[in-house]
Amino acid sequence: MPGLRLALIVILMAHGCDGGNVLVVPIDGSHWINMEVILRELHSRGHHLAVLRSLNSWYIPENSSFYTTITVTPPEDQGFNPGLFAFLVQRSFEINKMTPVWHFIEQQKDRAHMLQVFHSITLNFLSKVLEDSDLVGRLKRSHFDLVLTDPVFPTGVILAQYLRLPMVYSVRWINAGEAHREQAPSPPSYVPLHNSLFSDKMNFVQRTKNLLRYVVSILIEEAFIMPVYSELLQRHFPPGADLRSMQHSADIWMMRVDFVFEFPRPSVPNVVYIGGFQCREAKPLPAELEAFMQSSGEHGVVVMSLGSLIADLPKEMTEVISAAFSKLPQKVVWRYLGQRPSNLANNTLLLDWLPQNDLLGHPKTRAFVAHGGTNGLYEAIYHGVPVLGLPLLFDQFDNLIRMKGRGAARVVEASSLNAEDFLEALRDVLENPFYRNNMQRLSRLHRDKPLSPLDTAIFWIEFVIRHKGAAHLRSVGSSLPWYSYHSIDVVVFLLALSVASLWVLVCVCRLLCRCTCRTKRKVE
Amino acid sequence: MPGLRLALIVILMAHGCDGGNVLVVPIDGSHWINMEVILRELHSRGHHLAVLRSLNSWYIPENSSFYTTITVTPPEDQGFNPGLFAFLVQRSFEINKMTPVWHFIEQQKDRAHMLQVFHSITLNFLSKVLEDSDLVGRLKRSHFDLVLTDPVFPTGVILAQYLRLPMVYSVRWINAGEAHREQAPSPPSYVPLHNSLFSDKMNFVQRTKNLLRYVVSILIEEAFIMPVYSELLQRHFPPGADLRSMQHSADIWMMRVDFVFEFPRPSVPNVVYIGGFQCREAKPLPAELEAFMQSSGEHGVVVMSLGSLIADLPKEMTEVISAAFSKLPQKVVWRYLGQRPSNLANNTLLLDWLPQNDLLGHPKTRAFVAHGGTNGLYEAIYHGVPVLGLPLLFDQFDNLIRMKGRGAARVVEASSLNAEDFLEALRDVLENPFYRNNMQRLSRLHRDKPLSPLDTAIFWIEFVIRHKGAAHLRSVGSSLPWYSYHSIDVVVFLLALSVASLWVLVCVCRLLCRCTCRTKRKVE
Repeated sequence: MPGLRLALIVILMAHGCDGGNVLVVPIDGSHWINMEVILRELHSRGHHLAVLRSLNSWYIPENSSFYTTITVTPPEDQGFNPGLFAFLVQRSFEINKMTPVWHFIEQQKDRAHMLQVFHSITLNFLSKVLEDSDLVGRLKRSHFDLVLTDPVFPTGVILAQYLRLPMVYSVRWINAGEAHREQAPSPPSYVPLHNSLFSDKMNFVQRTKNLLRYVVSILIEEAFIMPVYSELLQRHFPPGADLRSMQHSADIWMMRVDFVFEFPRPSVPNVVYIGGFQCREAKPLPAELEAFMQSSGEHGVVVMSLGSLIADLPKEMTEVISAAFSKLPQKVVWRYLGQRPSNLANNTLLLDWLPQNDLLGHPKTRAFVAHGGTNGLYEAIYHGVPVLGLPLLFDQFDNLIRMKGRGAARVVEASSLNAEDFLEALRDVLENPFYRNNMQRLSRLHRDKPLSPLDTAIFWIEFVIRHKGAAHLRSVGSSLPWYSYHSIDVVVFLLALSVASLWVLVCVCRLLCRCTCRTKRKVE
Repeated sequence: MPGLRLALIVILMAHGCDGGNVLVVPIDGSHWINMEVILRELHSRGHHLAVLRSLNSWYIPENSSFYTTITVTPPEDQGFNPGLFAFLVQRSFEINKMTPVWHFIEQQKDRAHMLQVFHSITLNFLSKVLEDSDLVGRLKRSHFDLVLTDPVFPTGVILAQYLRLPMVYSVRWINAGEAHREQAPSPPSYVPLHNSLFSDKMNFVQRTKNLLRYVVSILIEEAFIMPVYSELLQRHFPPGADLRSMQHSADIWMMRVDFVFEFPRPSVPNVVYIGGFQCREAKPLPAELEAFMQSSGEHGVVVMSLGSLIADLPKEMTEVISAAFSKLPQKVVWRYLGQRPSNLANNTLLLDWLPQNDLLGHPKTRAFVAHGGTNGLYEAIYHGVPVLGLPLLFDQFDNLIRMKGRGAARVVEASSLNAEDFLEALRDVLENPFYRNNMQRLSRLHRDKPLSPLDTAIFWIEFVIRHKGAAHLRSVGSSLPWYSYHSIDVVVFLLALSVASLWVLVCVCRLLCRCTCRTKRKVE
């Protein structure tokens, strides 16, 4: 709809603000791929962007045409390590074979450990920044209008507080869980916890497990995240400063969520939804790839990619997948970096990088075999391509449960994969119109918005620049202690009052009874 | 910003749908004034509108250029009675003089009584509709795309269920309270109840009172609203049908709320905000009124109106107000229908109707003396005119507390009004830039939206027409019983389990102790 796009540009220009000065504190890895999309758009609208990065950054380049960088040398080599993820996949296969209780315990132990590792890296980086008086002076003199950050680790949060700047999040995770929980009511009766694998319709046992996960999640945060920063906060902030209040003080939480994907759940006014902002119409493919796509004829093409973190899979898995692909009449484009599977058929093209969005938007594409990262799933929704999910790590299991619940995906278990099951599931996704129809319905709903997710993001960033914050949208709830928030103190007081009143009543009755009895006896 | 408006029209046209067929079930009185604004816009975009009205309707005209009417003769004369509101004002003055406890009790009694009266009128009207087989046949044959209704009384809700049609609300109130409570989490720790006069920052005592109000409100609904319709539902619906589930089944709740006015609070994805949708740029005034405005010179004009429900005030109040006005250097335009006050000065112009939005948008207007109805307050916000509040009834007290909290209004008590206090407060609003600056800040925030509130309303109505509903935005929460929703069953189960485990542990320890003791004794 070119008219629509033109109209949106006119709107944003009418509301626009003179080029703002934005300090960007991103997260490395796949989170950066997202952030970059917003930065390109901000740059094209005349904003000046300064990106804070580590010298060892894995994904964030030093030189760019659309931002300047502030590069910090961390105390030691503490960049992201892609090898870590292959190890984590192996570990995930192992604990998947355990009984539910042990699975839960091991999962939580791993999670706590991983959080501790990442937060100590964050702490070291942050200390380096705050202790570098030249750098701090330069940041102060830059007169930024706001800090744009992904708060999964709190470098940007603490820095924004230190510089007393308004703050906008591009967010899906914070602390030990999904970001809504930090800001909006999240009743564990119908809001499934991260990694629970539950939907929003839970039976009694699932609700019990979900509540326990809720409590464990808070305990992990209090034990393994908050204490990491307490010494740093004491050193650089006035007494009483705490990380959670800082996190709550963001002006706008741009949530990378859309409700065609996520279960509908409570929200608050300063949360805006930008899920799918990275999606766009497909661009033409390189000539060679286009020729391969066209060679698939009426059968079309299967696209497979396991995202940016997992370069290659265990050999036995790739052989299984390759065997299944060889039996398809479709052609296959597979993003793959490991050793070439010995049984690879000639319908399958291996590429070490693929233009995923353009492939998913290609008319020949029939199905997407994916690990279930959100970037890929939103692109699949946007282009209406049904998914065969092969979850490996993190939120991928939960993400695919959402797509399965909408009837838009099938899911196979990576740790016990065999060629027959994989082929059966893939054929089902390819041949049963149920999946494609559901995905295309989701696509229509997702695209039917007054303002695209990316334009929504830009609008709210510029809103905060124009008004120097958005305090009028921040609810009081998050500043209350938990027992006040849930009225537990009031309920306990009212119960105590009722018990005391009842006790007084009983005492008075007894006294009256005794008096009556005595008078009776005297009379007798 | 004409460019912006043009752009929005392009957007809506790009997203548009062929003329929909909408059954409108409005509420009479000031609620109709609101609804009419949406209907005019829908009509201008090619939708066909059929409005269900009572023969005795007070506000809804039979003949209109932009909708057709379906007129129902109610069983007896049951139209709205404007005299009722003057009586209610008098009653409100009386109970305001009582001690807080009696005030609360009398207020709740009045509220329950009033709800019973209005709901029995609704029931009779609805019975008449559902029992008229010709009418029902005609409604079914009309193949409406959706029901657009204000659910404060459930005629539209029950009718939409009966006709199995998607449903969109224009809503602020439902059952015995504010509409969010029926749909979104509303922790009484920071969401003040209707009529509580609390803000979102409450101390312990206020939180206790607010929680009690919350409980009383639910009890009133269960005792005085839900039972009214049970017999009707049994007669016309399958067994198990209940009003609350029907109310929850709306596709979109268009909430007449904006967070420059309301305290930020939790929401859910199928609630959209259209507060202030009735506001628009001022149109030129009639020549005579324009001349009066210009004659005010540099001092400007005070506009006073107490809304559409209250035609006139007690004589002593009008004399007090009139006396105060006579001492102002400003001119005054006063919407007034009663007997002309004897002390009226010639700076004051009495009118029995005034173009309120155009007057508030006039550059000579300096202050707005208002009862605090939402329509007037949103117009004041839109045009940035500070308010002197004189609340009389219903939500007006609460509304003005919100404006006062934002530093955009002063409030005087109508039941104990005297000329000095009124004059002092009015002069403060006129002369202290604090109020005007704050109101103009609210105005800037309110107007800074990607889509105007009215365009938002139209977008979502058309969205529901296009997609035949919006079920993907409806959260599971509202279908859970209250004890499951709040995880009370799970907590009780876990507590019982803990107590039982502890008891077993104690028993085992005792047993072990005894065994050890016996063995010791034997050995001795």
